[in-house]
Amino acid sequence: MSDKVIGIDIGGTNLRGALVDSEGNIHKRMKILSQADQGIDKLIDNLANFIADISKGEKVTNIGVGIPGIIDSKNGIITQAPNIMNVDNYPLRSVLKEKLGPDLNIVIENDANSAAVGEWWMGASKDVNSMIMLTMGTGVGGGIVLDGNLWTGADGMAGELGHMTIYPDGARCNCGNYGCLESYASATAIRRMVKEGLQDGNLNTVLRETTENVHIEDIPRIVMEAASSGEEFSLKIWKEVGVALGIAIASLVNLLNIEMVVIGGGVSNAWDLFIDTTYKEAHKRAFRAPMERAKIERGLLRDDAGILGSAYLALHSSSWKGF
Amino acid sequence: MSDKVIGIDIGGTNLRGALVDSEGNIHKRMKILSQADQGIDKLIDNLANFIADISKGEKVTNIGVGIPGIIDSKNGIITQAPNIMNVDNYPLRSVLKEKLGPDLNIVIENDANSAAVGEWWMGASKDVNSMIMLTMGTGVGGGIVLDGNLWTGADGMAGELGHMTIYPDGARCNCGNYGCLESYASATAIRRMVKEGLQDGNLNTVLRETTENVHIEDIPRIVMEAASSGEEFSLKIWKEVGVALGIAIASLVNLLNIEMVVIGGGVSNAWDLFIDTTYKEAHKRAFRAPMERAKIERGLLRDDAGILGSAYLALHSSSWKGF
Repeated sequence: MSDKVIGIDIGGTNLRGALVDSEGNIHKRMKILSQADQGIDKLIDNLANFIADISKGEKVTNIGVGIPGIIDSKNGIITQAPNIMNVDNYPLRSVLKEKLGPDLNIVIENDANSAAVGEWWMGASKDVNSMIMLTMGTGVGGGIVLDGNLWTGADGMAGELGHMTIYPDGARCNCGNYGCLESYASATAIRRMVKEGLQDGNLNTVLRETTENVHIEDIPRIVMEAASSGEEFSLKIWKEVGVALGIAIASLVNLLNIEMVVIGGGVSNAWDLFIDTTYKEAHKRAFRAPMERAKIERGLLRDDAGILGSAYLALHSSSWKGF
Repeated sequence: MSDKVIGIDIGGTNLRGALVDSEGNIHKRMKILSQADQGIDKLIDNLANFIADISKGEKVTNIGVGIPGIIDSKNGIITQAPNIMNVDNYPLRSVLKEKLGPDLNIVIENDANSAAVGEWWMGASKDVNSMIMLTMGTGVGGGIVLDGNLWTGADGMAGELGHMTIYPDGARCNCGNYGCLESYASATAIRRMVKEGLQDGNLNTVLRETTENVHIEDIPRIVMEAASSGEEFSLKIWKEVGVALGIAIASLVNLLNIEMVVIGGGVSNAWDLFIDTTYKEAHKRAFRAPMERAKIERGLLRDDAGILGSAYLALHSSSWKGF
């Protein structure tokens, strides 16, 4: 029997995965289009074919899958994943077992939780017992690892760090709340700030022309480039992102006294433009001792964080019960 | 050998404790003045005498002590406890062992952490695996129990729920930060609101006369009685307390997906005046599913929460290593 497992990261655009051994070495890496926009059946077909392809020649029994959504990991059910499918309470584990074989051990987990486990296992937090990870993408995802275990909560729904309220009267979030971290530190937030700038007439011509009609995932890069060239409104946006992150991190450090805060995701590519602000804001607000303990680090694994995290969860699935 | 342990709760005014068996039954209860204002040596003398008195006739080896402050529970050190002593990094465990005997097993813990463990063990959260507790007193303390274990963090400093930022530009907190939960939901916060009401000329004569020159611990009761008789400004204060709690609870539920939120402490005696607001605010802001899961309950044990929690920690001290 192979000791290798498959770690998979399902996104709205891509479905990525790898064959991973118990030491965290990646042996084979694959990427296909997820085609989630063509419906759940298409996505599941793609996923099943992907698993068959990547495990060719190996006897793989354990598979971990990270999905952007609210996951009931205990029961292997996708409770809600509005960004990739409009099906609620989808029993992914049993569907996959039916398609691929009843002996498979399938773990499903929220993608940001998987990424946190990945960074803890093989990335920035390798030598750390307790950490949190913030993933800045279209939204802000999160994961909490306490004493070497992912804290998934009573029903597998814990770790929604992006939905801490940081400004009670702030901008409306996609979740329905006002002033979530996500509405100040995600690509969606940056798009909103750019739009507001346009409305106020604050935006220079370069930013106006380059951010109209582009995909949301590209907006942070454009605002990053503008800020790097000294454009004032863009600099203000990154400052606002930095402050928001700092407020959230201070609360998290006071709550959890973790050893490390890892920040990843595409938006974190603008690291140099917000991290000093974040650091200052967090240290201004949190208790001195736990804040000095909690290093703020950039994620090291990028796209591999979720794959490796899912692989780790798959490797440990037989004994896995939260804590 | 007795299977009984001693659980102690040290406060600024009183030192309370009890002899507790492994089932959580209280066999003997005592209370003396802590006299912490007369210096650390006096407090330690009182504590040592208290332990000798309460254990008379029993061979007690395990003692748990809850203290309002930042505690390094691993090393048995009081890092900081500004409300009861102005000594930093005080090695309470070794001092007590020297005074009382080297074979004693002494656990020290933050008092709000102890109270959370108490409510989880014998109180409102008896049948629950994961819960948080908020203790509304002069400040707002907190404790986090995850899967039946107190989460104390990397250095024993976790659980500062009162120092989550809920209004980034809000009132200054004793900790130096602005807009902590504590500065909106504690006796200190209520005193501030009353003072601001006086300055604005908003305060009716009754509240003005009764809140001047009274001890801070009595202010919540006075404002509670005024609100109960329909006095408008007092009602507004409790509404503000309720909203603040709701904002914090929503974030905590999204973060931790716990089964229960327990609220205790003297200020929570005004329960009926704030809990509806808290409930509405929390449900408005948090994700639906984890918020429906997390019952908001009033603490059942009052002053016994800390004593029983400390006793539990003492009972399990030999195997105790956080998680």
